Amino acid sequence: MNTKTHPFPAPTVPPLPVLGFDAAGIVCGIKKSGAPDLALIASRLPCKAAAVFTQNAFPAAPVLYDRALLGLNPDAVYGVLINSGCANACTAVQGNANAKRMAEAAEMALGSSDNTIFVMSTGVIGVQLPIEKIETGAPQVAAQLSPSGWEAAARAIMTTDVFPKWASRQTAVDGVTVTVTGISKGAGMIHPNMATMLGVLATDVHISQPLLQQALTETISHSFNRISIDGDTSTNDTVLLLANGAAGNAEISDASNPAYAAFVTALEDASAELAKLIVQNGEGVTKFVTVQVQGAASDADAHRAANSIATSPLVKTAFFGSDANWGRILCAVGYSGATVQPERAELYIAAGEPQAAHPQLQLVSAGTPTNYAEKDAAAIFAQRDVTVRVVLGLGRGSATVWTCDLSHDYVTINGDYRT
Amino acid sequence: MNTKTHPFPAPTVPPLPVLGFDAAGIVCGIKKSGAPDLALIASRLPCKAAAVFTQNAFPAAPVLYDRALLGLNPDAVYGVLINSGCANACTAVQGNANAKRMAEAAEMALGSSDNTIFVMSTGVIGVQLPIEKIETGAPQVAAQLSPSGWEAAARAIMTTDVFPKWASRQTAVDGVTVTVTGISKGAGMIHPNMATMLGVLATDVHISQPLLQQALTETISHSFNRISIDGDTSTNDTVLLLANGAAGNAEISDASNPAYAAFVTALEDASAELAKLIVQNGEGVTKFVTVQVQGAASDADAHRAANSIATSPLVKTAFFGSDANWGRILCAVGYSGATVQPERAELYIAAGEPQAAHPQLQLVSAGTPTNYAEKDAAAIFAQRDVTVRVVLGLGRGSATVWTCDLSHDYVTINGDYRT
Repeated sequence: MNTKTHPFPAPTVPPLPVLGFDAAGIVCGIKKSGAPDLALIASRLPCKAAAVFTQNAFPAAPVLYDRALLGLNPDAVYGVLINSGCANACTAVQGNANAKRMAEAAEMALGSSDNTIFVMSTGVIGVQLPIEKIETGAPQVAAQLSPSGWEAAARAIMTTDVFPKWASRQTAVDGVTVTVTGISKGAGMIHPNMATMLGVLATDVHISQPLLQQALTETISHSFNRISIDGDTSTNDTVLLLANGAAGNAEISDASNPAYAAFVTALEDASAELAKLIVQNGEGVTKFVTVQVQGAASDADAHRAANSIATSPLVKTAFFGSDANWGRILCAVGYSGATVQPERAELYIAAGEPQAAHPQLQLVSAGTPTNYAEKDAAAIFAQRDVTVRVVLGLGRGSATVWTCDLSHDYVTINGDYRT
Repeated sequence: MNTKTHPFPAPTVPPLPVLGFDAAGIVCGIKKSGAPDLALIASRLPCKAAAVFTQNAFPAAPVLYDRALLGLNPDAVYGVLINSGCANACTAVQGNANAKRMAEAAEMALGSSDNTIFVMSTGVIGVQLPIEKIETGAPQVAAQLSPSGWEAAARAIMTTDVFPKWASRQTAVDGVTVTVTGISKGAGMIHPNMATMLGVLATDVHISQPLLQQALTETISHSFNRISIDGDTSTNDTVLLLANGAAGNAEISDASNPAYAAFVTALEDASAELAKLIVQNGEGVTKFVTVQVQGAASDADAHRAANSIATSPLVKTAFFGSDANWGRILCAVGYSGATVQPERAELYIAAGEPQAAHPQLQLVSAGTPTNYAEKDAAAIFAQRDVTVRVVLGLGRGSATVWTCDLSHDYVTINGDYRT
């Protein structure tokens, strides 16, 4: 698959620089292909840090390292060094030592003190990090740092991603402009492994560390935790948010401050865009599907039902086949664990992402099919972007999940023998 | 896909007759293809009945009907009428009325009283049953009943199954021979729908109804609930067990009776064979994979981990690609919710089904890869039958799940537009 045949475009607007932050990406020789594989994001001012990590019980060494660092020093860090081509997962004691050496290499290259740089890795699992290449590369990537280096950094964290992914937002806080810029990488490795979801967001807002973490935690549940390519949660998934305060606003230290809401909105918008880009770059993707569940007994139930739809191989192959197969969709809701009363269930489909004004086609009413015309349903499911809306009629719980189809290319990409 | 290219064979030994039971299968005209689509299993003596039903919150009309019948009359039923070609699911009030009419048609054809016949349906969802065809067909299929009609019945419940599925076992109880014969159908529809798993087992053992249900419940967790094609639980899944006592043993009414254990063993063996046949007939299947998890903190944890492996698209595409991609397997264990200590995890693979004497290749020790030769792992994963064994080193919990790979044919079969 290449960008020429890929159905979704790369971001067209360049990433916005963030005051006080520099970024860079270089080739340090981990990938045999010679593609960029080492990225550095660094702040000239100390940053507050917030992060969320994979729930996988086999966390990779960089996840363990970052989790410890966040506990030790959440208030004065300077950046993150990221390599692609090797996940440093299932690498035991040596893997942990290499994660620390990687952080130290960046700290030395930046002239910053101990315990100030996070690390991330994505790529082959069960292989030790070629740490010497990273130690050689760290001063080289530091030498390339610039305020406009975000695209280079986004390219250096790609594995089988088709295009680099970034998003930026600006908002006014206390009369000053605050910027959020992030990069992410998605599902796709041609090597033994698992897909890794990584995100790094940088902002110049001035905010307390607890509120920064709260903002990220709120954001995650409306962005990165809303997507599913194939239901597999990797060992390396990490989203890191750094805030250096360079925008010059008065520190946000209270969630009731309107500035907090403004910042969270910008953060959520940027994160949602990064998350959608991951789906649109999903392995073998041909369709972008927005799954909405409404009227559930609770938000948790709605999320359960939406996730069940989004991870059902039967549903996802039907999307691939442009088959408006509502039976599979209701069936997935039925085994999701969400409370259901069949005779209240409704199902609607629409082309594109959901909008109030969108014409929608109702396929199911009171748990049974309406008299819809099959050609109308087929015309909607033939679109590249499709919304599926299930209304359970039980309460006010709702959830949205973004997913993609399950295609022949997905099987080809993931079934290929690793040679 | 046809039987010539299918990698797994149909049963080669004919089904054994069961004393007092007759079976038949005919064409009644529901399927446009003209293939057999109506099966009847009937006992000349009243039967104790036991059943397990889908947990799906959108149960089909025949599931609702059978659940009620089992509550009403578990002690003196006479059989089951099964149609393929239409699932009678998402059919609301009219669907429930049709399920009742279907049962009444069989009761009239057999001359048995009300509330003595179960019904099952599999096929298209959201379409009303062509009940007149079934009412016309019921006396016709009853006229074909014979002790050797099991294969015809097994053929008449097929949808896109490649071959009919049956299994028989005999055991000695109280000095008499007891027979168990069952038929099943598996995943696969070329029409809108969901896969339906159906199983019917008949036995001539004399046993109390509560113990019959207990025997079936125990058996399910070691057979039908051990398999996964794609993680989708259908609206119609049903396993029915009928026992008419014709073997002439003293009634088994106590679980501590050795006769109970003997019967359960025969029942489990037959059920496991029927369940494995469903996997071997899975949509697009090229590999039969036995997933064993041992040393878990509990049996429930082991089952969680085994199911997570068996339903991971990344793992299943790796099986398809004959790729011994252990990283994906451990990753699936890691997000399963089972308690894990990475540094204790071991992973072994072997060709064929597990046997104590089998040479096994250890891929992971203490959470990290061993120095295994990639060609040895590849040689095992190139086999049609593969066992994966994960040892967590935490306790005595264990579970086995049978599954298949996720192939291009799976995507083709399920992505095909329904025309």
